[in-house]
Amino acid sequence: MTPLAVIPFRPLNPKSRLGGIMTREERELFATAMLTDVLEAVTAAGCTPLVLATTPYAVAGARVSVTDADLSSALNTLLCDQDGPVLIIMADIPLATKEAVSAAISTRADVAIVPGRGGGTNAIFLRHGSSFSTDYYGQSFMKHCRIAEERNLSLEVIDSFRLYVDIDEEEDLVDLLIHGTGKSAGLLRSFGFRPVSMQGRVSVTRSSP
Amino acid sequence: MTPLAVIPFRPLNPKSRLGGIMTREERELFATAMLTDVLEAVTAAGCTPLVLATTPYAVAGARVSVTDADLSSALNTLLCDQDGPVLIIMADIPLATKEAVSAAISTRADVAIVPGRGGGTNAIFLRHGSSFSTDYYGQSFMKHCRIAEERNLSLEVIDSFRLYVDIDEEEDLVDLLIHGTGKSAGLLRSFGFRPVSMQGRVSVTRSSP
Repeated sequence: MTPLAVIPFRPLNPKSRLGGIMTREERELFATAMLTDVLEAVTAAGCTPLVLATTPYAVAGARVSVTDADLSSALNTLLCDQDGPVLIIMADIPLATKEAVSAAISTRADVAIVPGRGGGTNAIFLRHGSSFSTDYYGQSFMKHCRIAEERNLSLEVIDSFRLYVDIDEEEDLVDLLIHGTGKSAGLLRSFGFRPVSMQGRVSVTRSSP
Repeated sequence: MTPLAVIPFRPLNPKSRLGGIMTREERELFATAMLTDVLEAVTAAGCTPLVLATTPYAVAGARVSVTDADLSSALNTLLCDQDGPVLIIMADIPLATKEAVSAAISTRADVAIVPGRGGGTNAIFLRHGSSFSTDYYGQSFMKHCRIAEERNLSLEVIDSFRLYVDIDEEEDLVDLLIHGTGKSAGLLRSFGFRPVSMQGRVSVTRSSP
């Protein structure tokens, strides 16, 4: 059965932590480009995408559902009706590939959790959507592991840096510039962003495009 | 043929960027614990470990070679004599598991590169050690891809967050506390470090053990 891939998305004033280096309009374009990259990966992996947007929105290649509930509530309402397989995947993980998504949805476990940097959850695959309930507030990775355990669902943790890297802050852009081949990496480059070697790790610099 | 796993290691005053939250003695214990975790993973994956230390050092389960050359020079001198398979793997990636290391060393390509956060290289597997020459200064991931290309070596990039997460700064400790099951995560906990929810991502706090 084709998994439903639910992608929460905030069209207006997204990625506020990038506000110091991008205008609001640029952030909206950038968020859309990242969503497009994620949509491409989940579609290539054989999922049917559904964008769960906080305000009315349209995007090629996906149905859009609008909700004003908070993230966990909106997802849990949706999960109630889903007996089939559901993948919940964040819109800000543009290094996602068909292969990485396929690894998550081909788990033999009841639940596969894909960790994000700093204790987050970047994707959850559920063999039966209605078997689970999400809790994205705070240390969500540990919470989601606990929820699976409480419900006696077998769990696999997916080991993928392409799904682990989420783009929230300036320093996250380096990996997108270095490893990205999709729309959002191209847009960043067109904005003039380039990786630059600093002491220790690599940072980004922005020049006129 | 059993791959040689070369692990560069700095025994004295390591991990200086953790100096704000750990004493020098704690950092030395912590670096040794991380090395032990990496040794365990590479040994379980079937490699023969060799610690390449900057000062005299002894550790259970591995031969130690001491060098005062810089990282790339020391590694390249060593690679010259290695016609067999070599894995070069950093000592500060304590989430490494047998499975993740096995995925890297079972590549069908001539070279497998494991990216680290921010453009770094956390591991390189070489089917023939002498075929390659490393360059760890600056944006090493891109450099290593270019070196493989220049030498007409086929290349695979390994997708593993367990090998991607390197521990350099305070914010990196969160993922070790959350995902770590080895010696270094245990030591961190014994030092009193705990994950704590802040706005957005999770951070760490330290209390009396």
